[in-house]
Amino acid sequence: MALRARALYDFVSENPGEICVVENEILTLYSEAVVDGWLEGTNSRGESGLFPASYVEILRTEEGFSVQGNGTAGNIYNPRTGSEYAYQVRGDTSSESTPQRHGYPTSQGSDDDWDDDWDDNPTATTTAMTTHDSSVHQHKHQPSRANSVSSRGSGGQQARSSATVGKNLNRFSTFVKSGGEAFVLGEASGLVRDSDQICVVMGPFGPEWQESPRPFTCTIDDPTKQTKFKGMKSYMSYGLTPSHTQNPVNRRYKHFDWLYARLVERFPVISVPHLPEKQATGRFEEDFICKRRKGLIWWMNHMTSHPVLSRCDVFQHFLTCSSSDEKAWKQGKRKAEKDHLVGANFFLTIVPPATPLDLQDVESKVDGFKTFTKKMDENIVQVNVTIGEFARKQMTGFKKEYQKVGQAFRLLGQAFELDQQVYSVELNQAMAFTGAAYETIGDYFAEQPRQDLDPVSDLLAIYQGHLANFPDIIHVQKGALTKAKESQKDRDVPAAHDIHERCNIISCATLAEIQHFHRTRVRDFKAQMQHYLLQQISFFQRITAKLEEALHMYDQA
Amino acid sequence: MALRARALYDFVSENPGEICVVENEILTLYSEAVVDGWLEGTNSRGESGLFPASYVEILRTEEGFSVQGNGTAGNIYNPRTGSEYAYQVRGDTSSESTPQRHGYPTSQGSDDDWDDDWDDNPTATTTAMTTHDSSVHQHKHQPSRANSVSSRGSGGQQARSSATVGKNLNRFSTFVKSGGEAFVLGEASGLVRDSDQICVVMGPFGPEWQESPRPFTCTIDDPTKQTKFKGMKSYMSYGLTPSHTQNPVNRRYKHFDWLYARLVERFPVISVPHLPEKQATGRFEEDFICKRRKGLIWWMNHMTSHPVLSRCDVFQHFLTCSSSDEKAWKQGKRKAEKDHLVGANFFLTIVPPATPLDLQDVESKVDGFKTFTKKMDENIVQVNVTIGEFARKQMTGFKKEYQKVGQAFRLLGQAFELDQQVYSVELNQAMAFTGAAYETIGDYFAEQPRQDLDPVSDLLAIYQGHLANFPDIIHVQKGALTKAKESQKDRDVPAAHDIHERCNIISCATLAEIQHFHRTRVRDFKAQMQHYLLQQISFFQRITAKLEEALHMYDQA
Repeated sequence: MALRARALYDFVSENPGEICVVENEILTLYSEAVVDGWLEGTNSRGESGLFPASYVEILRTEEGFSVQGNGTAGNIYNPRTGSEYAYQVRGDTSSESTPQRHGYPTSQGSDDDWDDDWDDNPTATTTAMTTHDSSVHQHKHQPSRANSVSSRGSGGQQARSSATVGKNLNRFSTFVKSGGEAFVLGEASGLVRDSDQICVVMGPFGPEWQESPRPFTCTIDDPTKQTKFKGMKSYMSYGLTPSHTQNPVNRRYKHFDWLYARLVERFPVISVPHLPEKQATGRFEEDFICKRRKGLIWWMNHMTSHPVLSRCDVFQHFLTCSSSDEKAWKQGKRKAEKDHLVGANFFLTIVPPATPLDLQDVESKVDGFKTFTKKMDENIVQVNVTIGEFARKQMTGFKKEYQKVGQAFRLLGQAFELDQQVYSVELNQAMAFTGAAYETIGDYFAEQPRQDLDPVSDLLAIYQGHLANFPDIIHVQKGALTKAKESQKDRDVPAAHDIHERCNIISCATLAEIQHFHRTRVRDFKAQMQHYLLQQISFFQRITAKLEEALHMYDQA
Repeated sequence: MALRARALYDFVSENPGEICVVENEILTLYSEAVVDGWLEGTNSRGESGLFPASYVEILRTEEGFSVQGNGTAGNIYNPRTGSEYAYQVRGDTSSESTPQRHGYPTSQGSDDDWDDDWDDNPTATTTAMTTHDSSVHQHKHQPSRANSVSSRGSGGQQARSSATVGKNLNRFSTFVKSGGEAFVLGEASGLVRDSDQICVVMGPFGPEWQESPRPFTCTIDDPTKQTKFKGMKSYMSYGLTPSHTQNPVNRRYKHFDWLYARLVERFPVISVPHLPEKQATGRFEEDFICKRRKGLIWWMNHMTSHPVLSRCDVFQHFLTCSSSDEKAWKQGKRKAEKDHLVGANFFLTIVPPATPLDLQDVESKVDGFKTFTKKMDENIVQVNVTIGEFARKQMTGFKKEYQKVGQAFRLLGQAFELDQQVYSVELNQAMAFTGAAYETIGDYFAEQPRQDLDPVSDLLAIYQGHLANFPDIIHVQKGALTKAKESQKDRDVPAAHDIHERCNIISCATLAEIQHFHRTRVRDFKAQMQHYLLQQISFFQRITAKLEEALHMYDQA
């Protein structure tokens, strides 16, 4: 079926390549891809060309694709697909200090001033978006939204959005995209089986994910080259062996990639570890494969040690489905892609501790964590630059200096060899040995970063991924908190209690995830610093041993 | 008594400031100093101004000051004073491949072609001279020399120079300046007491200086600041304590300097260690004092370990004369300055082994040594550059890199401190400690060159001094060998046997000195390389210990 769109406003082409569109006209699109704010397609008069993406709404008829619980058709942004076709996003993201805007505009057109405040709602800041949406654009016309949306809340409760606890206008807001808003407003619904429940328990340091009763690990073997289509096409395959099944399965990077996409849409406030970079340029293939495998090991380690991620169906399918049973794989794949407990519905699965949290306390904790992540992210960048430079220096400068000193000692020894004194022979040999020893030490320096700095760098990379996830997670919680506050201001809002309760659920999940992050961080950095120091100690001990060997050469001299 | 000179040729002034001189005219000199080939004085007609130094001979009447044993007055170059007033030296020193020139020119004037070969006698190359004589100059007129010089040989024998075993024309030749030529030609004479005798014995590896029966060492304390003229003038004084007297004496650098000058004129084929540089620019005073003291310690070490230098009177006077007994000091000083066993007469004191050396064997050994010294000198320059650069890198780049890594770890620790998790506290502390440890390691790197590379550099400096001495020493031996060969060609030369014998003495002394050099070299470089490696080992062990300390911090994390 051809991809179609309906024009929301008139657009008069001004430049070659553009086509005119008339309000309500149906257009055929070449693709959903928005390039610099433009879509390409054919209008009802058969003219083909470009028109502003924000002037049209894409028509979708596929079932189960709508975000809205009530199934209302309309100009809906679908956070699942990640397509960026409908609404304006302003480049300015430093709007947190601007007064909060409540309610919506109700009319379209002549709203330039309204535009200005478009993103000023702190629950809708676009901090994280700029990295996701490369095609943000500005436009003068904005669509209006229905003021009130009827929806079914969790547990079948009916919730009515009021003017004070309304929906967020910014369809790019993480709070909206994640389903956090829909959940808080009671618009999420779905069947949650007992086995789907995710418990947050109160630990000594606050809410935490309930530990997995059957923790496991998973090894990743060196990838092997596989071929298909009678050798026409080749790819790398990774052998994974989960400790709980002991059955090795083969997975390609694209399977990891697919899994990752499932997890991201499934768990709005869980930091899914980023996969290692898809492609590294300027590296030898072997280096790249090795680096990717190390990255996947880190990734797997973070996956298996996460109480929620490690247990979820799609991950278990990925780890346990036989590589040779294509049918079973496809079934599991389809099931995962049709999972209804994604986004807003994820929150339905969360069972919070009996006692609700003090939201003020949550806010302060989340704010503290926000400051922390910002600092950690900044410092990781700095540390990465520093250790990268340190590695480079060791592999070039340090190596060269030690080799040059080695050559200098050799040179002296060579001069000494020119003399005809027999009693100098041992000294000459010792000098030559010392020269060689320093050249070897130069090599040690060059090889060392691979042993110690590279793993630190790998660790920092996975944490950079987490830190990039957290602004969105924090956003969801903050959005929920804002809604809860709004509802409390107006005691008349019938859903205030429910909203507060749902905000508590989101807060519990968020704090549990933060707790998990800290636990993992302390574990990983402790282990990695120990590894680094052990490697460094062993490195300097090897140097010392080499020098001692050289020193003994002089015993006979 | 005024300093006077006799004109050897007519000179007609051509420029303002010059004065005319007439052959045999007596001139009064302002000083002996030759500036760019000119002397300043007054002629017999009372005109004052400049005239070419090479046109006159300085008249000396002081006793014991003449080189020539027969006391013949004439245009004698006195190698003792080191003044460069009489003869032309050509700048071109790369003349070793030009055919050897025998005999002398007998006429003056129109000798441009003769000029060209002036320095081509290999016994008279001026390799080492350019460093000694800064005021070499060119002149068109050349004095003629008496063809035959009657002289008394050693042991009172009468020797007659023939046309084939003649004197070297180049008064700047080391062979001439050192007294080597005079000795070989039998022109040296003097009273040699038994205690003055210096024995060369045949050791397992060839001729060597007889070991001192009472070897000793001498310590040099940190210099102290002394003042005189009621504090108007201050100077540094070094406390020396020779092990054989245990009496400390105080000496200033100028005393070392005076002693050095005595030793250089006293011992033509002994490599007197160079004193540390007189002034170091761009250094803090403390650094300079420290560096000079280390240089003096090396110097003293080479002095006391030399069988000949360590025992000579002037050195003993320097080491043992009480600092407070000014009269005794002055007496010893005057005695040393009047020592008649300097230069040519030094060779009179040498007692060679019973069996004369095979001169061909000597030649090959000396040639081998020459090649060796050239290579060693070249390589030392290279090594010095390398270790200087290595030291600089450690003090700047290496230090900076380790400190930057330290700061990076600190940064991470600081970010971690922002979080509110109590279970992170120990990790944060360990990270901070690790950061500090790396900063300390940076300091270790910066401080290390002072411990290991600087002493190597000091050692190389003293050997550079020796290597600079050896071309002259080799020259003397080669000059003697050439004379011996010349005398053998013409069997009629009555003194041929004596010349051969005296050449043997010079060869024995030269080989003994070479032997001593090698022994000392092997001893010094062995010790220094051991010291260097030990320091490096201790350095890397300190780093390792620091890292282990840091590692243990994680035990509690």
